[in-house]
Amino acid sequence: MSTLSRPSGRAPEQMREVRIERGYTRHAEGSVLVAFGETRVLCTASVENRVPGFLRGKGEGWVTAEYGMLPRATHSRSDREAARGKQGGRTLEIQRLIGRALRACVDRGALGERTITLDCDVLQADGGTRTAAITGAYVALVDAVRWLQARKEIAKNPIFGAVAAVSVGVYRGVPVLDLDYAEDSDCDTDMNVVMNDGGGFIELQGTAEGHAFRRDELNALLALAEKGIGELLTAQREALAQ
Amino acid sequence: MSTLSRPSGRAPEQMREVRIERGYTRHAEGSVLVAFGETRVLCTASVENRVPGFLRGKGEGWVTAEYGMLPRATHSRSDREAARGKQGGRTLEIQRLIGRALRACVDRGALGERTITLDCDVLQADGGTRTAAITGAYVALVDAVRWLQARKEIAKNPIFGAVAAVSVGVYRGVPVLDLDYAEDSDCDTDMNVVMNDGGGFIELQGTAEGHAFRRDELNALLALAEKGIGELLTAQREALAQ
Amino acid sequence: MSTLSRPSGRAPEQMREVRIERGYTRHAEGSVLVAFGETRVLCTASVENRVPGFLRGKGEGWVTAEYGMLPRATHSRSDREAARGKQGGRTLEIQRLIGRALRACVDRGALGERTITLDCDVLQADGGTRTAAITGAYVALVDAVRWLQARKEIAKNPIFGAVAAVSVGVYRGVPVLDLDYAEDSDCDTDMNVVMNDGGGFIELQGTAEGHAFRRDELNALLALAEKGIGELLTAQREALAQ
Amino acid sequence: MSTLSRPSGRAPEQMREVRIERGYTRHAEGSVLVAFGETRVLCTASVENRVPGFLRGKGEGWVTAEYGMLPRATHSRSDREAARGKQGGRTLEIQRLIGRALRACVDRGALGERTITLDCDVLQADGGTRTAAITGAYVALVDAVRWLQARKEIAKNPIFGAVAAVSVGVYRGVPVLDLDYAEDSDCDTDMNVVMNDGGGFIELQGTAEGHAFRRDELNALLALAEKGIGELLTAQREALAQ
Amino acid sequence: MSTLSRPSGRAPEQMREVRIERGYTRHAEGSVLVAFGETRVLCTASVENRVPGFLRGKGEGWVTAEYGMLPRATHSRSDREAARGKQGGRTLEIQRLIGRALRACVDRGALGERTITLDCDVLQADGGTRTAAITGAYVALVDAVRWLQARKEIAKNPIFGAVAAVSVGVYRGVPVLDLDYAEDSDCDTDMNVVMNDGGGFIELQGTAEGHAFRRDELNALLALAEKGIGELLTAQREALAQ
Amino acid sequence: MSTLSRPSGRAPEQMREVRIERGYTRHAEGSVLVAFGETRVLCTASVENRVPGFLRGKGEGWVTAEYGMLPRATHSRSDREAARGKQGGRTLEIQRLIGRALRACVDRGALGERTITLDCDVLQADGGTRTAAITGAYVALVDAVRWLQARKEIAKNPIFGAVAAVSVGVYRGVPVLDLDYAEDSDCDTDMNVVMNDGGGFIELQGTAEGHAFRRDELNALLALAEKGIGELLTAQREALAQ
Repeated sequence: MSTLSRPSGRAPEQMREVRIERGYTRHAEGSVLVAFGETRVLCTASVENRVPGFLRGKGEGWVTAEYGMLPRATHSRSDREAARGKQGGRTLEIQRLIGRALRACVDRGALGERTITLDCDVLQADGGTRTAAITGAYVALVDAVRWLQARKEIAKNPIFGAVAAVSVGVYRGVPVLDLDYAEDSDCDTDMNVVMNDGGGFIELQGTAEGHAFRRDELNALLALAEKGIGELLTAQREALAQ
Repeated sequence: MSTLSRPSGRAPEQMREVRIERGYTRHAEGSVLVAFGETRVLCTASVENRVPGFLRGKGEGWVTAEYGMLPRATHSRSDREAARGKQGGRTLEIQRLIGRALRACVDRGALGERTITLDCDVLQADGGTRTAAITGAYVALVDAVRWLQARKEIAKNPIFGAVAAVSVGVYRGVPVLDLDYAEDSDCDTDMNVVMNDGGGFIELQGTAEGHAFRRDELNALLALAEKGIGELLTAQREALAQ
Repeated sequence: MSTLSRPSGRAPEQMREVRIERGYTRHAEGSVLVAFGETRVLCTASVENRVPGFLRGKGEGWVTAEYGMLPRATHSRSDREAARGKQGGRTLEIQRLIGRALRACVDRGALGERTITLDCDVLQADGGTRTAAITGAYVALVDAVRWLQARKEIAKNPIFGAVAAVSVGVYRGVPVLDLDYAEDSDCDTDMNVVMNDGGGFIELQGTAEGHAFRRDELNALLALAEKGIGELLTAQREALAQ
Repeated sequence: MSTLSRPSGRAPEQMREVRIERGYTRHAEGSVLVAFGETRVLCTASVENRVPGFLRGKGEGWVTAEYGMLPRATHSRSDREAARGKQGGRTLEIQRLIGRALRACVDRGALGERTITLDCDVLQADGGTRTAAITGAYVALVDAVRWLQARKEIAKNPIFGAVAAVSVGVYRGVPVLDLDYAEDSDCDTDMNVVMNDGGGFIELQGTAEGHAFRRDELNALLALAEKGIGELLTAQREALAQ
Repeated sequence: MSTLSRPSGRAPEQMREVRIERGYTRHAEGSVLVAFGETRVLCTASVENRVPGFLRGKGEGWVTAEYGMLPRATHSRSDREAARGKQGGRTLEIQRLIGRALRACVDRGALGERTITLDCDVLQADGGTRTAAITGAYVALVDAVRWLQARKEIAKNPIFGAVAAVSVGVYRGVPVLDLDYAEDSDCDTDMNVVMNDGGGFIELQGTAEGHAFRRDELNALLALAEKGIGELLTAQREALAQ
Repeated sequence: MSTLSRPSGRAPEQMREVRIERGYTRHAEGSVLVAFGETRVLCTASVENRVPGFLRGKGEGWVTAEYGMLPRATHSRSDREAARGKQGGRTLEIQRLIGRALRACVDRGALGERTITLDCDVLQADGGTRTAAITGAYVALVDAVRWLQARKEIAKNPIFGAVAAVSVGVYRGVPVLDLDYAEDSDCDTDMNVVMNDGGGFIELQGTAEGHAFRRDELNALLALAEKGIGELLTAQREALAQ
């Protein structure tokens, strides 16, 4: 494997600095600002005592997510989706992913007929916004569940395990962990990996932007992802212990 | 005038603590987090080298604003406007107001064929989001113009004077300055006042929520607004001097 | 004060000829064609035995307004909002204003669980369409309430007092009453004033289009508005007495 | 043929009173209020010096129509299409019909690269709004062309012949001319007929609402339509001669 | 009448080859691929145990239609309506026509509170898609009703008679039957005729694309339509007998 | 590995019967009906001599895809996206995937300033519609390129290699190939795999619907996918050789 110079000077297996700040805003039942380096996402968890139509009367809850990007979170200004009158395909794809990832650690029967909505709004983007969003939304979700438990609205904790996500990719021929924007816009393969704290895969989304990737590259990427997710799970635990 | 107990314990003519933090995010030409107490608005200024169709080829620039509220900026979650597929009437009204207010201090000929878009996104709402947005957006606008001047893209400063805004209202029979949410949702009259640093009115929007207001009440409210705006103009100057 | 030549030849404190024609169309419970000079707005009041969701079961009624402009009400043709697929910001702003203004003279408990919708459609525009709309809609509202009373659907008149509106502005340095289009598109300050027949202000919306306005200008404008609204309240009374 | 009692007391072959008032509003190049009894439609013709994309550079003009109904033109209030965010199928169908009907009497080469838009807005509806719209829009179109000729923008009159429209139907077993709302909502067959002054058919749209109609009924309906259109063409000529 | 050369070499009174294939897809209660020459439309009938709001609780059923065209059913690609965000006027007009035509042979009381939706999707277009759709949708409707009868959900057959449709037109001066695309885009008059098996007219829509048509031309066109519809009714009967 | 009974009776590593029919419709430059068992997707390739705005003037072409599902392709009828006024998140996600997959085998410089749009419309759904769409769209793309080459519009073949896709999943504890609807709606893990004929991965999208999956399960799934894609590449080659 060749010597690589990542734009940020990081080693291939080195994540950006991760910060998880709970209680960032005051109204939401859970409110977390998560930073993966310069990427900053505000994740709030809102509890509502109703469920979508397809679940009504079934005694189950729902966990869903919405994703947005402030117009000038990015290098150049993007149109505001509310002004354009619809959410783009990328937005819908990401919020569907976040929702699936979080539902994978929730016992919806134990949640009862409630909806928890995770709003993930990107204040500043530098690559990896969806993986930061999943990682932060998990912490906001835990805070919302603790709020429900403190009010004795639910008896049993509906969350089992923990969920975190990271991106990996092949940048200039070298597998690297936690792509920033400079790498993301210039890499051959880009993969988002969601895992739980039992070492299982929740979601795997890999795309060959340049040349197709092979089994050995895939294996190297997954090893990096496992390492990064281990660090993220630790960061989540530390944040939740404060 | 009766003794008043404001929910926050403030005196009638007392503003909330105002904070103006420049450089809050890194990509925008101007980026300001403004706080009026618990109300927090992120105001970014984005420079683009194009103008709307109706100005093309006229040698003039444009200053415009967009306003948004994160879904859980409020006590209970509101629908995301991007998901509903349109901006509501309140949103449109506020962003039109912000745009007019800021254009009132810009020489659009001196700006040249450029658009500066002020995105005002409410991270946390506690009353007065539109007045905080105008006050913060002015600072972001100045930073964007300084950026243009530093790159020598424009010769002459197109900004003349300064603009700030505050709300006033009659709460339980007493005129008060800078309404917070508890007051705003329970007052008789609500007025938003935009002024410049020459003491002139840019915009005046007063609504009798309960009983109609009279000339003497109006005069008392305007006097409070003048006091508050004086303090806000000072806060802007101090922030811009750092 | 300098000698002024208004485009219409009117004196500064002179309103345009005001006409209020009841029963203009036949299906609505109230139907009024109001003219402020060449500005002509058809205001209909429709009674429906239902209320919006947020009022259901509370024993209160609702009064709301919708505003529209025929595509060729104006000097050059505007796009039809139905064809563009949405109402513009100006439209939403005006119809919200009309609704608030009319609700200010209605006891919604006495109205009962009914909605009265005031549709204000501009057939011909020459400035001041929103103030004409409010002034005419009040008369249509009274007719709709009389219709309810004649059918003995409501016992007590839910309307208290009367509401009218007029615009004032500073045109070429001189405060003038009831701006027409030629003045409106070329004035320094434009203010819409809504008052009741007790001399109280319901709504005040002033905008400095050119230079910012000062307290003495504001006072002069409000004095003109009071005069104009007095004449409009008389015209409403006369129309309703026929 | 059985003895029929039409709700209005008219004879089967009798049209409602037709009024055509030119110059109804002042801004449009043609502006006509047309009344077929209680049905009243405002038809304006607007001239613009541009054509749709598919005609650009071909030296031909375009004639098109838009149709709208004020929310309370009808017995009970309908939703405003601008507020619902789209034009309904009925609206689109009618405005496509009006456009085709008017294009049938225009030499688009002689019109030059101009668009004439016919806005037909129903102020009051009592059946037959589309046929009144076509009949009135023709007069507005002639006025717009006269305006172009008076300004010497076009040399040759692009309009050949005249176009008018009427509805016919089988009401309680009897063919009748010019259905009003009471008949329209309770008839077996409803047919809209557009003809020119040469006795040719431009458009024929017949629908069996109840039982299917036969050739002899069709022939009786077409004879009634020819009679009615003859009267409408006369009314148009008289209006244009004033 | 001159000697005519139709682009396809057909005689003026000759239809294209008609094929009706039942059971084309497997999930729908009725599924028919209908071909008029190169025009191919997939018509499915879907049964649902609910009715639109305006029929709820009235003991009546509903029959409705939706129409679509695959983007590359045509010579050049058209925009996908789902991507453009709305159905065009032509689409709405056609699906309203199909729905009316089919409702003309259904006793909605006998159907009970059910909706049958006829989805007519054009796989390949060569003129006459709406007439093929009506003709095929009738067969799908019969299959859906047979499905209901086989499950004993309804006792009485709600379908009376049969319905089919064909286009006729004046092509280069000669009345011809069943226009294909080459004729449709170059004809003087185009008429769509819907009839039942009792020889009655359900719907008649004729448009003069070039010169206006006269009574004798209309009569010739209707005679052709009667002939064509006779053949289509036979084809329907044969398909249903298999 | 336990004994498995797949609903279809297939062996775990057995694909459904695959059929690829070229020239299914006549207007498109490429038109392929692909069937994976009961799943049937019509894939058309349309060539247009223009590119999206972001590519204009760069000498490169574009390959993009749109996906749709006929309303009754599924067990119960779904709303028509054109009627609802927008494409859902699932649709956007799938069409973005198809576009990326096909662009991975195209030299866009060699294509020149042209767009090839792949419309993938599901006529009948039984699981695996997106993988069938990619596999069929590749063949339609080759046909469109052959059409361009036959007309000598391009000199060099812009397609390198071949692309196919298949789904794999863990059904009742056993890794299986090519999920049908019965399996897809009841499996623990679902993965879509896109590969090229060089054995490289283009796209990998795995989701744990039930319990999280582990590395050994992932490896088993990828082995199945490689087998299935080998068969699909053969089927493509045979279809293209005819």
